Amino acid sequence: MLIVQKYGGTSVANEERIKNVAKRVAAARQAGHKVVVVVSARGDLTDELMGMAVRVNPNYSKREMDVLLATGELQSSALLAMAIQGLGHPAVSLDGWLARISTTSAHTNARITSIDTERIMAELDNNQIVVVAGFQGVNRRGDFTTLGRGGSNTTAVALAAALKADICENYTDVDGVYSADPRIVPGAVKLSEISYLEMLELSALGVNVLAKRSVGLAKKYGVKLVVKSSFDDGPGTVIKEVRKMEGMFISGVAVDKNISRISISGIKDEPGVWFKVFSLMNQANIPIDFIQQAKMDDGTKDISFTVAKTDLEGAVAALEDNHRLGFDAMTHHGGIAKLSVVSTGMATNPGVPSLMFEALFEVGINIDSISTSEIRASVLIDEKEADRAANVVHEKFLSGKYIRD
Amino acid sequence: MLIVQKYGGTSVANEERIKNVAKRVAAARQAGHKVVVVVSARGDLTDELMGMAVRVNPNYSKREMDVLLATGELQSSALLAMAIQGLGHPAVSLDGWLARISTTSAHTNARITSIDTERIMAELDNNQIVVVAGFQGVNRRGDFTTLGRGGSNTTAVALAAALKADICENYTDVDGVYSADPRIVPGAVKLSEISYLEMLELSALGVNVLAKRSVGLAKKYGVKLVVKSSFDDGPGTVIKEVRKMEGMFISGVAVDKNISRISISGIKDEPGVWFKVFSLMNQANIPIDFIQQAKMDDGTKDISFTVAKTDLEGAVAALEDNHRLGFDAMTHHGGIAKLSVVSTGMATNPGVPSLMFEALFEVGINIDSISTSEIRASVLIDEKEADRAANVVHEKFLSGKYIRD
Repeated sequence: MLIVQKYGGTSVANEERIKNVAKRVAAARQAGHKVVVVVSARGDLTDELMGMAVRVNPNYSKREMDVLLATGELQSSALLAMAIQGLGHPAVSLDGWLARISTTSAHTNARITSIDTERIMAELDNNQIVVVAGFQGVNRRGDFTTLGRGGSNTTAVALAAALKADICENYTDVDGVYSADPRIVPGAVKLSEISYLEMLELSALGVNVLAKRSVGLAKKYGVKLVVKSSFDDGPGTVIKEVRKMEGMFISGVAVDKNISRISISGIKDEPGVWFKVFSLMNQANIPIDFIQQAKMDDGTKDISFTVAKTDLEGAVAALEDNHRLGFDAMTHHGGIAKLSVVSTGMATNPGVPSLMFEALFEVGINIDSISTSEIRASVLIDEKEADRAANVVHEKFLSGKYIRD
Repeated sequence: MLIVQKYGGTSVANEERIKNVAKRVAAARQAGHKVVVVVSARGDLTDELMGMAVRVNPNYSKREMDVLLATGELQSSALLAMAIQGLGHPAVSLDGWLARISTTSAHTNARITSIDTERIMAELDNNQIVVVAGFQGVNRRGDFTTLGRGGSNTTAVALAAALKADICENYTDVDGVYSADPRIVPGAVKLSEISYLEMLELSALGVNVLAKRSVGLAKKYGVKLVVKSSFDDGPGTVIKEVRKMEGMFISGVAVDKNISRISISGIKDEPGVWFKVFSLMNQANIPIDFIQQAKMDDGTKDISFTVAKTDLEGAVAALEDNHRLGFDAMTHHGGIAKLSVVSTGMATNPGVPSLMFEALFEVGINIDSISTSEIRASVLIDEKEADRAANVVHEKFLSGKYIRD
């Protein structure tokens, strides 16, 4: 098999951990596989480097930031190659240039445009274990670019796609994808597999196991992903195209407290209001949810919707700056949480939302509003009730055997 | 003018110093010059990285060490470019690849084979201040190589030669080249200028202001060098081709305590003995000095010569391993020092060595042996007398007005 393995910053945080990663890589090699490894910068190095940059020049140029940040992954790649060699296996590190990872020129947030696998394949054919510095590529001029946070996952998936690898293993500090956040829902179980779509939805709901972008890329190119811990030997969770489920299995219960509601009153009730709101938020790249409206007697209407708390400032500014959208008053408040159940079976199974509503009803938790998509059912509830709500809903599905671990 | 400036590790050791360097670069730019800056890794980063490598794998591969070490200069170059931009001047950092510095493949000790100045010239024409990561280049495959310690000086001189720069300024933590080590000879004076040859000789005698290799390169291509402090505004010392002096001016008095004498007795007195000794030492890349021999009555001879203490082990091993050189016994001892006077005027002025001998005679310091070259006169003396000897000899030349500051 040709395996792409990706190790995150905590997995290579110090010399001991780098040597442990080397053992894992060597084991895959000894099992007869060809191995390409993608590494992140160690531990907090990226943050340290950003701190230095800000102290030198708070208005740093993004091009120079990319040169600076690229060194973090370069160091990891060289050190890991050395550690693998120390176990008696030939290894070679390649940076974004040598791995021929071409990107757009959008410094600090570039996208991969193509990968020329010639050098990597030549090294593999030469029996080398190839260690690629993650998170980086080069633009047309050969200048370093970086792919944004979570970029090493993107590097790994893109390489797996380009190399037609059999599997892309993501080693991290958790041992897989859980049916809920175990810190909130102690009964959460580890899933043995999950579909790309469900994983995308969970990523969008704040489950930080894999960057949404890398899951999307894996789905696009059919790259089989595994999420595993770099600290133990568990099987992890496989992310792949799963056949449509017959039953109403769910893949996760997610709580998102990063929510604010924006309410606007006194908008003229005429066609195009929502179009204007959506296009403003879209220009500002801010997703919105839980849309509600109420018509008033005076011919105006009040509307409300939710945005991530972290997007609140941008959303308010965009709405205030735009004079096309006349309104009397705008308010916003927090204190709310979004509870979601994710299931690809939902499209054909209305039972999923009902079971969630039933669980909440049984314990007297009030539902403020409801929002559903093809594979997700979400409710807005009081933030103070969020953790309890997650537990009762999770327990409802688990005891009904609607979660497959 | 086109100026190449080089800043060493202490000059860019932290964010404040990087900002100070940026001010100096900006000043040169504001004076109307085109500026190319070469930077070293900050402070002790290179040593830290080497330490990490050794802990990961004591038998690290030199190729990977080069990738690891190259990141130090890359970080400095990006941070300095940011700091210069913070002062309102456009700046761009270039690594060994983008600066098109081609080298041999001798990892950790590569030599520059050529520099394609196209990208640098394009950036200069585009009004950019160009910051080049020192110490590094790339081999034919595009893999990073490094030039060995002191390599950033070599980068600066090579760039100055390739760009036909008007001057190459080396900023360091000393403010110029002195007529003797001020820690030993308090009366030492800073020289306003010195010839390439004298500087080469002083470098060989342990004066660590500039790596010998970069001075040799500057001489070869006629690059005008200046050594200056990055912490004050003194004029520094200019190193260039100086016309032969009419008088007997000296450029420096140097003390070298890193000396051991090797004595071999019972060698058959026949032609070729010295050839064998020299060729053995040459193969081991060990310079020798103060050669002496004495013929014995039994047809054998005793020979002795000095090597650097740091080369002693290698020299003894090479002599013992070689069976062609039959001898009865080999001993070695330290406790000696080499006192040298360097002067390009010496070839035509026997007055230089005589004045040195006179100074030593006046204070009763015994001379063990003498060695001279075209521009250097050295004596071997008791190590305990070395500092006093340096002071009296320096004073003799200074008071005779044979040192031009």
